[in-house]
Amino acid sequence: MAQARLKVYGWGREGEGMTAEEEAFIMGGYRRMFGVSDFTEHKVPPPAEYSLRAPRISPPASLSRICSIDTYDRALHAHSKGYTDYVRIMLNRFASAPDVVAHPESEHDVAAVLDWAGSVGAALIPFGGGSSVCGGVTPPADGPPVVTLNLAKLDKVLEIDRASRAARIQAGVFGPALENQLRPHKLTLRHFPQSFEYSTLGGWIATRSGGHFATLYTHIDDFVESLRVVTPSGTLESRRLPGSGAGPSPDRMFIGSEGILGVITEAWMRLQDRPTFRAGGAIRFKDFFSAARALRVLSQTGLYPSNCRILDPNEAYNTGAADGSVAIMVLGFESADHPVDAWMARALEVVREHGGEPEGKSGADAHREGAAGMWRNAFIRMPYAREFLTPRAIINDTFETAITWERFAAFHDRVKTATEKAIRDVTGHPGQVTCRFTHVYPDGPAPYFSFHAQGRHGALLEQWQAIKNAASDAVIAGGGTITHHHAVGREHRPWYDRQRPDLFASALKAAKRVLDPRGIMNPGVLIDP
Amino acid sequence: MAQARLKVYGWGREGEGMTAEEEAFIMGGYRRMFGVSDFTEHKVPPPAEYSLRAPRISPPASLSRICSIDTYDRALHAHSKGYTDYVRIMLNRFASAPDVVAHPESEHDVAAVLDWAGSVGAALIPFGGGSSVCGGVTPPADGPPVVTLNLAKLDKVLEIDRASRAARIQAGVFGPALENQLRPHKLTLRHFPQSFEYSTLGGWIATRSGGHFATLYTHIDDFVESLRVVTPSGTLESRRLPGSGAGPSPDRMFIGSEGILGVITEAWMRLQDRPTFRAGGAIRFKDFFSAARALRVLSQTGLYPSNCRILDPNEAYNTGAADGSVAIMVLGFESADHPVDAWMARALEVVREHGGEPEGKSGADAHREGAAGMWRNAFIRMPYAREFLTPRAIINDTFETAITWERFAAFHDRVKTATEKAIRDVTGHPGQVTCRFTHVYPDGPAPYFSFHAQGRHGALLEQWQAIKNAASDAVIAGGGTITHHHAVGREHRPWYDRQRPDLFASALKAAKRVLDPRGIMNPGVLIDP
Repeated sequence: MAQARLKVYGWGREGEGMTAEEEAFIMGGYRRMFGVSDFTEHKVPPPAEYSLRAPRISPPASLSRICSIDTYDRALHAHSKGYTDYVRIMLNRFASAPDVVAHPESEHDVAAVLDWAGSVGAALIPFGGGSSVCGGVTPPADGPPVVTLNLAKLDKVLEIDRASRAARIQAGVFGPALENQLRPHKLTLRHFPQSFEYSTLGGWIATRSGGHFATLYTHIDDFVESLRVVTPSGTLESRRLPGSGAGPSPDRMFIGSEGILGVITEAWMRLQDRPTFRAGGAIRFKDFFSAARALRVLSQTGLYPSNCRILDPNEAYNTGAADGSVAIMVLGFESADHPVDAWMARALEVVREHGGEPEGKSGADAHREGAAGMWRNAFIRMPYAREFLTPRAIINDTFETAITWERFAAFHDRVKTATEKAIRDVTGHPGQVTCRFTHVYPDGPAPYFSFHAQGRHGALLEQWQAIKNAASDAVIAGGGTITHHHAVGREHRPWYDRQRPDLFASALKAAKRVLDPRGIMNPGVLIDP
Repeated sequence: MAQARLKVYGWGREGEGMTAEEEAFIMGGYRRMFGVSDFTEHKVPPPAEYSLRAPRISPPASLSRICSIDTYDRALHAHSKGYTDYVRIMLNRFASAPDVVAHPESEHDVAAVLDWAGSVGAALIPFGGGSSVCGGVTPPADGPPVVTLNLAKLDKVLEIDRASRAARIQAGVFGPALENQLRPHKLTLRHFPQSFEYSTLGGWIATRSGGHFATLYTHIDDFVESLRVVTPSGTLESRRLPGSGAGPSPDRMFIGSEGILGVITEAWMRLQDRPTFRAGGAIRFKDFFSAARALRVLSQTGLYPSNCRILDPNEAYNTGAADGSVAIMVLGFESADHPVDAWMARALEVVREHGGEPEGKSGADAHREGAAGMWRNAFIRMPYAREFLTPRAIINDTFETAITWERFAAFHDRVKTATEKAIRDVTGHPGQVTCRFTHVYPDGPAPYFSFHAQGRHGALLEQWQAIKNAASDAVIAGGGTITHHHAVGREHRPWYDRQRPDLFASALKAAKRVLDPRGIMNPGVLIDP
């Protein structure tokens, strides 16, 4: 059965979206937040009205089998899922549409498309699910012709090594299709970014995606056993090894390279057994910093909960997890091998010692119930909301970072205050900035901020940019990273440039010149030629 | 109180070494192994007889304060602690002595020495404790003049962040001095490579050292929060972050770079609380593969024992841990936060289900008692043995690797057989090859082989090289890594060149040309210019 097409405007596939009840719940929240009874609604053009320029290049006969200049296809690859993408589509701005979309069916096809793009001076943008929220796959509007390489047909699990719990997997596979292929083997990658349904293994690796596990295996990085990468200079494959100390890790050069060095076509990935033992629950704290202090201690116990997210009171309220008067910690352990009661019991001792009050429910299904369940559901459903918020000029976006514990409180206040001030200055109305932790390390948390502003049609892109600038400036000045797991893309470049050491950028440029001598790979991302 | 000088020939400091009882125990083992009643003993020249060529360069006046051309100093930095180093010193071969040894007292000194070395066309070799067993700090004998940069004076913990459990530490600090400075803060790095007493933080990072933890935090890599590196092109510092997804990790380019890109001068390191809860013990198995199968299952439980090493019967016998009829697993858990009984109980269930029989003793002090204690002691003391073995023409060396589980059994047999055959072919006598696991991952073990051969004076270097070649060929052909934690250095280069992807080497060369345009940094290691 063929799946519905991916939406050009919106999250997921055509026909999907929030229910009327979900939309009413969310819009009710914004009416209360902004004290507004109704919002002016801008029309979003239907696909038939999309206005794209004619392709500037056309593929050679040998590649016509896998290349498309279809309007839907080009429109789909013109944008991804960041706030500015929604606005530009609403404004029928498709200047960033690629000229050609290639759908390789083999690694040989990938190499052939790279060769062709290089020969005609086109930029080449590797594309997985297109769920980037930072312009990672958005073609530059005013550059050379662009070929977007959609890897979705490379979607197979090719080999399973049950003894080592590893699999060789093509990079274009989407999350659900990957898990479906692993399930008969009782294995799972267990990497569930929020975009899980609409993002790919290769995308996760290229962007250092953050996943299911709140501790220990936070990023995809540690699940990568080896890689195959097609670069304009040739194909390379790292050796399958459980660990190695032989020089700097080749894999680590490509993990996070965001398509600027080559196209990840396959990876051997470390897998998990499917968990059968669970314990979890939600814990209330009087405020966010109390929850953070408890989580700091918990993060340093060596218990490694699979889940230990905290939500500030407004964040908990917005997702329906609490009434706005308390901060919430969502805590969980899981195992395929053993009951995790001893782990959960000690974790609850720690959080109680630090002022946490567990909710009544706690047990194996607690992650699907109560505050934890509310938050889990909101986490999965929330990306659909932007479809109806953007036409109502509601600017809702998120940004995320990481910071060491000793600087967290001041950092949080600095970033929150700067973002709130920018919202007020820019829109003339107070907005809201909330915070949660998505991942936690012994040396610091990964805070994730959401902001909500009442924007104005005709100025949304400028308003968003001013808020984004203020927030990002505060993140970098406060010592954080411009991204913990959303990647750099094009939108985070100015702050990434301030964050990364200059000499590292020079070394990375030199490496790129070797692998991509014509500079065709995803230009504008991470470094300039 | 001034410490004794480091030995030029031998392990540790002058005055240290094995007791007569330890030596008798070990020599008894070799007499039985080779069926030899006594060994011809070659004389090792005392330091006063060392024969070094005159230095080819001399430092400028501005650096004379920190530079030495003293014979002891140059002799100390001519070799490290590999088998061939012992033989060459025994043969009074010091052609590899550096011309000048610099002892920088500050990062400024480091930069000044790099500038000077570059200006006179000298190679520069960063030197920590000099415990390399693969020629990582051995100057090329027939190249340009050499300046060795001994970082031992950069030995301070500069800053402690108790909340984040991290410290800013100078790279030249030796293991014990580092732990002494952390102890008042109730913190520990808890990274104890076998060379712990005679190696440095910077050396651990530059070589991806393997430490105390048998699972999870196996390499130093994950303890590195940020780095400062002085390169010939300038100094760079990565941002202190608990986690980040902003591009390829800058730290990972320098971790494992073995001195070819620059000199690591400082690092922010992630620390641990000092453990107060322990459980451990030793488990017997009928053979090594049974123990390996049990350990495979254990490695995939998510219990993360701090110790879970296995020794094959001969390895257990040689270290006094068992009688030669059984394989031994040394198993341990530790925590600063909670009793680890639930962890140990489940681990014992797993190993029992797979044929393991726990020794009588098991408990908090079990790691210092019984088979576990015997092995632990042998582990720490063994490096001293080579001092008296080499003059008796006994070739004893080790090599280590990692391999995925599904290939382990065939790999083990291939490597062991190839090495045994080489020993027989080369020496005319059967030798012994034993195996243990030093670290274990869910997808595979890190096997560590020891070999023992009855060599012949006058041919030791050639005999060793032939055995090494056979073993390394088998490791690479069998799919392993040429090193899991001993590094590449100069001795592993031919096999590293076969292991790492060519395009990665080209990219790394390009990065090096940017950071080290004159190619002065540790030439011959990892890549050629």
